[in-house]
Amino acid sequence: MSMDDLAPDLTEAREIPVEAIPVEMDAHELATQLVAKLCHDFISPAGAIISGLDLLEDPSAQDMRQEALNLISTSAKKMVTLVHFARVAFGAATSAEAFNGAQLQKILDDVFATMRAELAFDIPGDAVFTKPAARALLNLGLIAGNALPVGGVATLGMARDEDGLTLTAEAKGARARLKPEAVEGLKGLALGDGLSGQWIQPHWLHSVVRAANGSLDFTSEPDSLSFTIRLPA
Amino acid sequence: MSMDDLAPDLTEAREIPVEAIPVEMDAHELATQLVAKLCHDFISPAGAIISGLDLLEDPSAQDMRQEALNLISTSAKKMVTLVHFARVAFGAATSAEAFNGAQLQKILDDVFATMRAELAFDIPGDAVFTKPAARALLNLGLIAGNALPVGGVATLGMARDEDGLTLTAEAKGARARLKPEAVEGLKGLALGDGLSGQWIQPHWLHSVVRAANGSLDFTSEPDSLSFTIRLPA
Repeated sequence: MSMDDLAPDLTEAREIPVEAIPVEMDAHELATQLVAKLCHDFISPAGAIISGLDLLEDPSAQDMRQEALNLISTSAKKMVTLVHFARVAFGAATSAEAFNGAQLQKILDDVFATMRAELAFDIPGDAVFTKPAARALLNLGLIAGNALPVGGVATLGMARDEDGLTLTAEAKGARARLKPEAVEGLKGLALGDGLSGQWIQPHWLHSVVRAANGSLDFTSEPDSLSFTIRLPA
Repeated sequence: MSMDDLAPDLTEAREIPVEAIPVEMDAHELATQLVAKLCHDFISPAGAIISGLDLLEDPSAQDMRQEALNLISTSAKKMVTLVHFARVAFGAATSAEAFNGAQLQKILDDVFATMRAELAFDIPGDAVFTKPAARALLNLGLIAGNALPVGGVATLGMARDEDGLTLTAEAKGARARLKPEAVEGLKGLALGDGLSGQWIQPHWLHSVVRAANGSLDFTSEPDSLSFTIRLPA
């Protein structure tokens, strides 16, 4: 458990009309904070692989060979999962202009395999997502999963009408909550006292939704959070 | 050799006054292109580690155990090198507000160990660099090294006077050249027909220098490129 898990729960209901909060973020700041988060995420499995190799080559630790191989294997898979997620959620992903539900579910399933929360992906496998919508959905899924520190179920849904696309997430489980810096990020506010690594990804989602002229709302009740993103057609 | 290595050399002399070229890059575009480049760089060693593990666990390939371990080890070290470089060159690197020459040399030495070019780091180990200057130096070093596809020497230097800091790089070796998309990036121009992965890092350097109110010039002669960055005090 990290220090910021000790912050108070934010269980009062709230609405965040994204369009009402003009924020200008320096292009460098956005890019460098995103990269810093990625580096932070990558360095841990990369270091674990090197630790595993050291163990493997240690003559006095030959009884731990299988543990070492497992550590290397788990860490390498985590690394690939992170890259696949980042490429669509944060990256330009120039190789594909659109994604289907099954592709996005695969990415999120792998991410949730590294978390305590379970994913209920209530979206058809053949639903087609534009790049901004795919980015929004993956980031929304990660936020919903991260909001369940001791487990629970994050349910993702979608609806389409003539006005555009609605993406929904519900995070239900004991101690479901958003950290204060995640709330600041979702509102598009500058980072306060918290950790930038907890703030940048929600801030990125805000920024993605705003760039698509969409809106993002969320409500928070005890053990339950709901998120709604609307993207115009 | 990738396809874009076949592009013609750009050996005419040129000067690029950064401040003369107003460019506005969308914040999202800058961030997503940087992340896409990082993901592209990361996926190759991550995939190689998984290939190495598959080989290690293949009962019919027990004679290749050492090769498999070497592949895993080399790829894991490359991954760590990439993360360390990216954290300072592209990331916010919030843990350190300044860097010394020895720290930056260590990062570049590791990067050059994965390249054909040699690094001559002609900068004192105790020279202190602000974050933007450290970012500029690492990116400049990478560009100089990448400009030597079949080997050569990339020499980095610095000078400080009352007006500010000057960073220099010389890339000398057979076929020393910048790819067309790297030239576009260094000029702060939009990407033309080339590969975005070859363009974004030079473009990022341009952007870092411009954000610091500095200037970037380069000249190109057969088998020799020179770069000069000036950052005001």
